[in-house]
Amino acid sequence: MLTSPPHTRPGCARSVCEHTPAVTRHSRTRLRNLCGYPKRVTFPVVGMVGGGQLARMTHEAGIPLGIQFKLLSDTPQDSAAQVVSEVVLGDYRDLDTLRDFARGCDVITFDHEHVPAEHLATLEADGVVVRPGRAALAHAQDKGVMRAKLDEIGAPSPRHRIVADPADAVAFAAEGAGEGGGDGFPIILKTVRGGYDGKGVWFVRSEEDAHDAFKAGVAVLAEEKVDFARELAANIVRSPHGQAVAYPVVESRQVDGVCDTVIAPAPELSDELAGQAQELALRIAKELDVVGHLAVELFETRDGRILVNELAMRPHNSGHWTQDGAITSQFANHVRAVLDLPLGDPRPRAKWTVMCNVLGGDYPDMYQGYLHCMARDPQLKIHMYGKDVKPGRKVGHVNTYGDDLDEVLERARHAADYLRGTIVE
Amino acid sequence: MLTSPPHTRPGCARSVCEHTPAVTRHSRTRLRNLCGYPKRVTFPVVGMVGGGQLARMTHEAGIPLGIQFKLLSDTPQDSAAQVVSEVVLGDYRDLDTLRDFARGCDVITFDHEHVPAEHLATLEADGVVVRPGRAALAHAQDKGVMRAKLDEIGAPSPRHRIVADPADAVAFAAEGAGEGGGDGFPIILKTVRGGYDGKGVWFVRSEEDAHDAFKAGVAVLAEEKVDFARELAANIVRSPHGQAVAYPVVESRQVDGVCDTVIAPAPELSDELAGQAQELALRIAKELDVVGHLAVELFETRDGRILVNELAMRPHNSGHWTQDGAITSQFANHVRAVLDLPLGDPRPRAKWTVMCNVLGGDYPDMYQGYLHCMARDPQLKIHMYGKDVKPGRKVGHVNTYGDDLDEVLERARHAADYLRGTIVE
Ligand SMILES: Nc1ncnc2c1ncn2[C@@H]1O[C@H](COP(=O)(O)OP(=O)(O)OP(=O)(O)O)[C@@H](O)[C@H]1O
Ligand SMILES: Nc1ncnc2c1ncn2[C@@H]1O[C@H](COP(=O)(O)OP(=O)(O)OP(=O)(O)O)[C@@H](O)[C@H]1O
Ligand SMILES: [Mg+2]
Ligand SMILES: [Mg+2]
Repeated sequence: MLTSPPHTRPGCARSVCEHTPAVTRHSRTRLRNLCGYPKRVTFPVVGMVGGGQLARMTHEAGIPLGIQFKLLSDTPQDSAAQVVSEVVLGDYRDLDTLRDFARGCDVITFDHEHVPAEHLATLEADGVVVRPGRAALAHAQDKGVMRAKLDEIGAPSPRHRIVADPADAVAFAAEGAGEGGGDGFPIILKTVRGGYDGKGVWFVRSEEDAHDAFKAGVAVLAEEKVDFARELAANIVRSPHGQAVAYPVVESRQVDGVCDTVIAPAPELSDELAGQAQELALRIAKELDVVGHLAVELFETRDGRILVNELAMRPHNSGHWTQDGAITSQFANHVRAVLDLPLGDPRPRAKWTVMCNVLGGDYPDMYQGYLHCMARDPQLKIHMYGKDVKPGRKVGHVNTYGDDLDEVLERARHAADYLRGTIVE
Repeated sequence: MLTSPPHTRPGCARSVCEHTPAVTRHSRTRLRNLCGYPKRVTFPVVGMVGGGQLARMTHEAGIPLGIQFKLLSDTPQDSAAQVVSEVVLGDYRDLDTLRDFARGCDVITFDHEHVPAEHLATLEADGVVVRPGRAALAHAQDKGVMRAKLDEIGAPSPRHRIVADPADAVAFAAEGAGEGGGDGFPIILKTVRGGYDGKGVWFVRSEEDAHDAFKAGVAVLAEEKVDFARELAANIVRSPHGQAVAYPVVESRQVDGVCDTVIAPAPELSDELAGQAQELALRIAKELDVVGHLAVELFETRDGRILVNELAMRPHNSGHWTQDGAITSQFANHVRAVLDLPLGDPRPRAKWTVMCNVLGGDYPDMYQGYLHCMARDPQLKIHMYGKDVKPGRKVGHVNTYGDDLDEVLERARHAADYLRGTIVE
């Protein structure tokens, strides 16, 4: 239990602080009397809902912080459940399970966005500390809610609106046809909820193409198809008292809708646009009262503007490079933020860091590839998730860093491809 | 279970390899037939005996490697038991407990040197893979055995011999009195077994002083009191197939016999002496057939020689800096070595890295100090062990790194002192 709550407001690490930092002098004498000697004063307990790789890596980052970690996981085979000591098996969609789990945790945080909003509301009403909170999370859970809020605060989005049926999608496309006429296709359709790794996103060229998006019975958001130059991500971490740190803006490359490669920092990004992207992410975090890690997925347009694609309020694939490439990783800073601890320095430790995801190939044994990669590149940083290999499934990632971007990219690419089984030397 | 044993011999990462590297082409086709698709091929299971902070940090390093970790620990409150999913509670001095524990582990390794040698012999006879093995570990378990072996292989030690009683210690001192005469005191007495953190080491000026060392009923080793300029440590990691990597030689400062500060690399150490120390450590590892991390604690004499103080065959306090200061940490390389995986690059990531131990002070609550240190220094790397605070007990350490040694030292020193409660700003 958090017997020593972080009630003081420590000074800012760097970057942004919305408040004037208060004096950090701690009243040790007072505490001494309260606690009595030699009573043990334990460190806080973080409850993590969801047993995926994000939870696994957050636990890893919490170990040196001395943080107690409690996991709510579906099965004991889940990625995080394999490495955490205190695992509660249960369904995050069940309110009683969540309530039981929350007891004995100082704060609840998440591996994914799928906990029902009404359950989050109940937990908050119960007095459970939920970070990020229900109100903020709503924007990561529902792309319609997110677009509405971004419009409200004047953050740039692709042209968009909720569409009722395929005919309405045709109308939406036509609205964007512009001077030149035509039907306005292609457009993008997305279910507002339940999508991940490109599932729930359709590239639509005609009324026929539009039907699939409506099959799930979830509201459908139509967006202009942005002819982007590339995708970026602006990652920041914000704590309840308003301290925030911004990581360098990264380039994120998707293949078949799945994150494939991340380059930190984004090559040849102007300082101006990088600054704009960081400012935007910090502003969104503040306006939406996000606590913890916020990833703002962005499109960089060919005419040098940025548009928000979507928001994730948890550690994010575009931040995995920070484990080996930044002074403080996104995972460590997420833990620090949800506990309202002072945040760690987000600056890079290398000129270039590259992350490549390792996807399952159609070869189930990664162990031989793993040996090969370690032998070939003693500087390679491998991160395996302990998951069964299934084709296309994210089962790990690799990080490389160094001064020469081409070389750093090649090393990461080779390792990821070799582990997947795409190349056999 | 290790269904894909590392039976190939991957090429050398760097540094030393005692064998000609074999061809690393992996027979994927053959394996595919053996395993059948889509059978899961899991990664190996490392069994760690002992639940202290070394086990805790080894688990942390094993998570990204995808390694399954199994712990034999005394209590569920042990430092490592708090963070590992598979914990067996039991006594490492009990053979049946060890045998049960070893079942289902691909390799057994250690948090400490205290497992009885006869039990290690039985496990090895059972076919359990024990790394480092019994024969190597004998030299870390018994300082008498270690000195005899170092003499045999011509490694430099302080003058020494086993002494039978206080009168014999007086005789040992006199033997070293030299030309000038005198009684030859002071000398050092050490119990050959069971010492740690300076416990079991006596600074002896007279026959009276010598009595305490004999009280435990353990054989006593007498050593000349070396008038050292400073203490160094040469840390290397060696794998069963003979690959080895050497970390930079560090300076290690003891206070009251306990490691206090480690500076990597050792300031103003000549390349020649550094090379000698690394060569010596690699040679000792080979001659003693050490597998895993080997710390060789050294004295640097005022006339520029090095003498071996003692050996530790496990991750060691003098290597904690590698967590934040080297490309591959001692913990990750220890795991890689005991599994005969290719080793990771041991080179430093910063010009200077400093580690200071955090000892328990007489103030039990570290949480306020922890907040202060994070707020004061966003680059500080804190490593807490989850242990109850007791005066003088190692409860954590901090790492700092950077280009300016004075600044890096000051930051680590301040944080360690503040956490201990020595300073309250
Ligand atoms: N309006 C758009 N214009 C062009 N491409 C788009 C648009 N929206 C999405 N995409 C493409 O589809 C990818 C996936 O979209 P989005 O991020 O919304 O889906 P998701 O399933 O939530 O993905 P994840 O959660 O894995 O990031 C984007 O990274 C981008 O490559
Ligand atoms: N022969 C010696 N001459 C001078 N100082 C010595 C000698 N032997 C030991 N010391 C001092 O005592 C300290 C502890 O000795 P040693 O390393 O043998 O003990 P230990 O209890 O096994 O310590 P640990 O296991 O914590 O390293 C040394 O680091 C050194 O400072
Ligand atoms: Mg996305
Ligand atoms: Mg010692």
